[in-house]
Amino acid sequence: METIYIAFLGFGTVASGTYQVLKQQEEKIATSMACQVQVKKALLRNRGNYVKTAHHDFELVDSLDAILTDESITIVVEAMGGVDFAKDCIEAALKAGKHVVTANKILMAQNGEELTNLAQSQGLALYYEAAVAGGIPILESLRTSFRAEGLHSLSGIINGTSNYILSEMTDQGLSFEEALQAAKDKGFAETDPTNDIDGLDAARKLAILCRLAFGMTIPLDKMAIRGIDHVTSEDIKNTSTLGYLIKPLATAILDDDGALSVQVGPSLVPKNHQLATVTGPMNAIYTRGWASGEVMFYGPGTGALPTGNMVVADILKIVDALVHQEHIPALSRYHVPLNLSAADREIFANFYHFKLLDRDKGLFKLTALFEKYGASLNQLTPIGRHHVLAISQAMTWQDSKELIAEIENIDGISIDRIYPILGQ
Amino acid sequence: METIYIAFLGFGTVASGTYQVLKQQEEKIATSMACQVQVKKALLRNRGNYVKTAHHDFELVDSLDAILTDESITIVVEAMGGVDFAKDCIEAALKAGKHVVTANKILMAQNGEELTNLAQSQGLALYYEAAVAGGIPILESLRTSFRAEGLHSLSGIINGTSNYILSEMTDQGLSFEEALQAAKDKGFAETDPTNDIDGLDAARKLAILCRLAFGMTIPLDKMAIRGIDHVTSEDIKNTSTLGYLIKPLATAILDDDGALSVQVGPSLVPKNHQLATVTGPMNAIYTRGWASGEVMFYGPGTGALPTGNMVVADILKIVDALVHQEHIPALSRYHVPLNLSAADREIFANFYHFKLLDRDKGLFKLTALFEKYGASLNQLTPIGRHHVLAISQAMTWQDSKELIAEIENIDGISIDRIYPILGQ
Repeated sequence: METIYIAFLGFGTVASGTYQVLKQQEEKIATSMACQVQVKKALLRNRGNYVKTAHHDFELVDSLDAILTDESITIVVEAMGGVDFAKDCIEAALKAGKHVVTANKILMAQNGEELTNLAQSQGLALYYEAAVAGGIPILESLRTSFRAEGLHSLSGIINGTSNYILSEMTDQGLSFEEALQAAKDKGFAETDPTNDIDGLDAARKLAILCRLAFGMTIPLDKMAIRGIDHVTSEDIKNTSTLGYLIKPLATAILDDDGALSVQVGPSLVPKNHQLATVTGPMNAIYTRGWASGEVMFYGPGTGALPTGNMVVADILKIVDALVHQEHIPALSRYHVPLNLSAADREIFANFYHFKLLDRDKGLFKLTALFEKYGASLNQLTPIGRHHVLAISQAMTWQDSKELIAEIENIDGISIDRIYPILGQ
Repeated sequence: METIYIAFLGFGTVASGTYQVLKQQEEKIATSMACQVQVKKALLRNRGNYVKTAHHDFELVDSLDAILTDESITIVVEAMGGVDFAKDCIEAALKAGKHVVTANKILMAQNGEELTNLAQSQGLALYYEAAVAGGIPILESLRTSFRAEGLHSLSGIINGTSNYILSEMTDQGLSFEEALQAAKDKGFAETDPTNDIDGLDAARKLAILCRLAFGMTIPLDKMAIRGIDHVTSEDIKNTSTLGYLIKPLATAILDDDGALSVQVGPSLVPKNHQLATVTGPMNAIYTRGWASGEVMFYGPGTGALPTGNMVVADILKIVDALVHQEHIPALSRYHVPLNLSAADREIFANFYHFKLLDRDKGLFKLTALFEKYGASLNQLTPIGRHHVLAISQAMTWQDSKELIAEIENIDGISIDRIYPILGQ
């Protein structure tokens, strides 16, 4: 039986999970693939990052060259993270004729197009299923099962840390700080969770998803990104009163003209919506399509074994082609020019929390003002004498901005909070 | 640009949905596949079954030969349903060197192994993604993304009619008969819904899923299959009191010895479980795996367009291989001998509804009896003076049977209802 040799770059959580899956499922893999897959080498620049396994049967090397010049190695798994060195390594590996699998979401969000082009020009694979929603096979499903579909929208809970924090605030009544601490204690937040909380991590994953779902490469600086650190227990209570949960959403909505509206941040989801049930550190991607209707993929977003399982799935796609001496399927050949919704086209309904000096007078003014913009205020709910909650009808981003500016000029009325509501 | 020609056998709901997706997404398909896909002929034995489309650009033929002898046609989509004639047609198409896509779950459950072997011996495709959970890409995910995974269990809500009926009974308080009528009125039940209600339809789909998930071909007569027609409004109220919903589940659980326990029927799902949120006619497949943890695929189980989308995905997998003149990937090469759990190994927790002539004496006897079998009764909840609800600890099927026989011999105690609870 043929053996295909692979090498790891780095041996942290993802690589150790991948290694465990390959070893534990050795027999099933050999049966399914008619071929053996063996780890031959791992590059470790810093042995401190080495995740100890009970024992391992591969060679630790400290130079990339030891892997690139080894002709028996056909697949390189980049599992170091980081950007610059990882990018250099992937480029070098592709130039040396190796297929590459990576879980590096930062790199694939930033340089995915460039690296994919390099791989395709070499006839090599560059797969990265584990980079988005670690344990959920969403990229492969978009690639194969939705290849002919015209998706209208995609909404994801794709950052487990922020979902855990908001879930704990909702279910346990914790403050943001307490929930963050709980996330750290349980291992659901890293020591520095900045990019989980400020939305950047989810934005990167959304950029990767949009490339496959809509064929567009979206630069991060074109995305509206909000963090979850301003969400208060009071917000959670107030939105719950109106029948909503606050979830950390990453959404992309295609309008009728083929323009995409993209945003990341805490958003309201109706309590009976399928995404409302995605709690704790779990991830989900919810799609609406012309043909497929509503489909949701739910699963773990992180963890050595779930992520390792997806890295192995990528490896085996390459192995399958190698065994049959075939071309490597491109992850996607569907690309359209970047086309982002203009502010006067994007449409959102919003949750508003108003502070009013005089409730009745203030409400009168607000209702008139919203009507001027052709939008009514629904579910008007007073909280004490000086606060009112409401849901606005959907209106354009541009109109919202102008309306908010007008409100802020009225004496005795201020906006305490605004959250967008999950769109279609 | 190359054109690949396909033919339909039958032109009902599935074929018309497939045709719509192919036409509407023509441009995206051509871009993604670097190839055009065109429907050339459709076999119609009975024009009464013809689903009218606004116009169509293919030829209607009334003999299979007109398709089999047409060398320009490389892919045949069997969309007639039924068993005998469909089987003859698929065999004839494979023998004539055509690739086949089908949505025929009855045929694939009964003769899937035989037909797959025929296809593989000819180096041809036989794909059937749409046969299970119409709009959800579950077979493809099992084939590629869980190829190396050791799944522990799979639980599906894979019959939309019965899910709709139980959802309406739960949410609207309807009786079984009222809910069935509502399902018919809304088009969620066929004129003859017998096999949806008696569990056979779900059992067929479970058999197909088990072949891909566990590598086992399970004859339907080896499955424990119960229908949903005995579920009463009272059962739904009682189980709800204890925190459960009654859902139409199809489950397969692998034990530590590699034996599979398979059953279909109304089962209890904790209200906070992910499967509890799958309501109305929607479908879902929930898996637990050694590496992947818990993953759920949620989406429409039926409908012309969702199903058509999956048929098109199957067609495009074949097109992809044809364009690159490659071998056709087998849906699964992983097979193990049939190994079903023995009754003394299968473990279930059950919901019990007891009728007791003398509640306190009866409960005393019952508790002692369950203890004899090493299982305690939990959540004991009296309903009036003569009824008690309880959840038993997990016990083997064999023990349950003996215990139930013993209870039925006690004067003044009877079992009104038993439901199994979703296992792990």
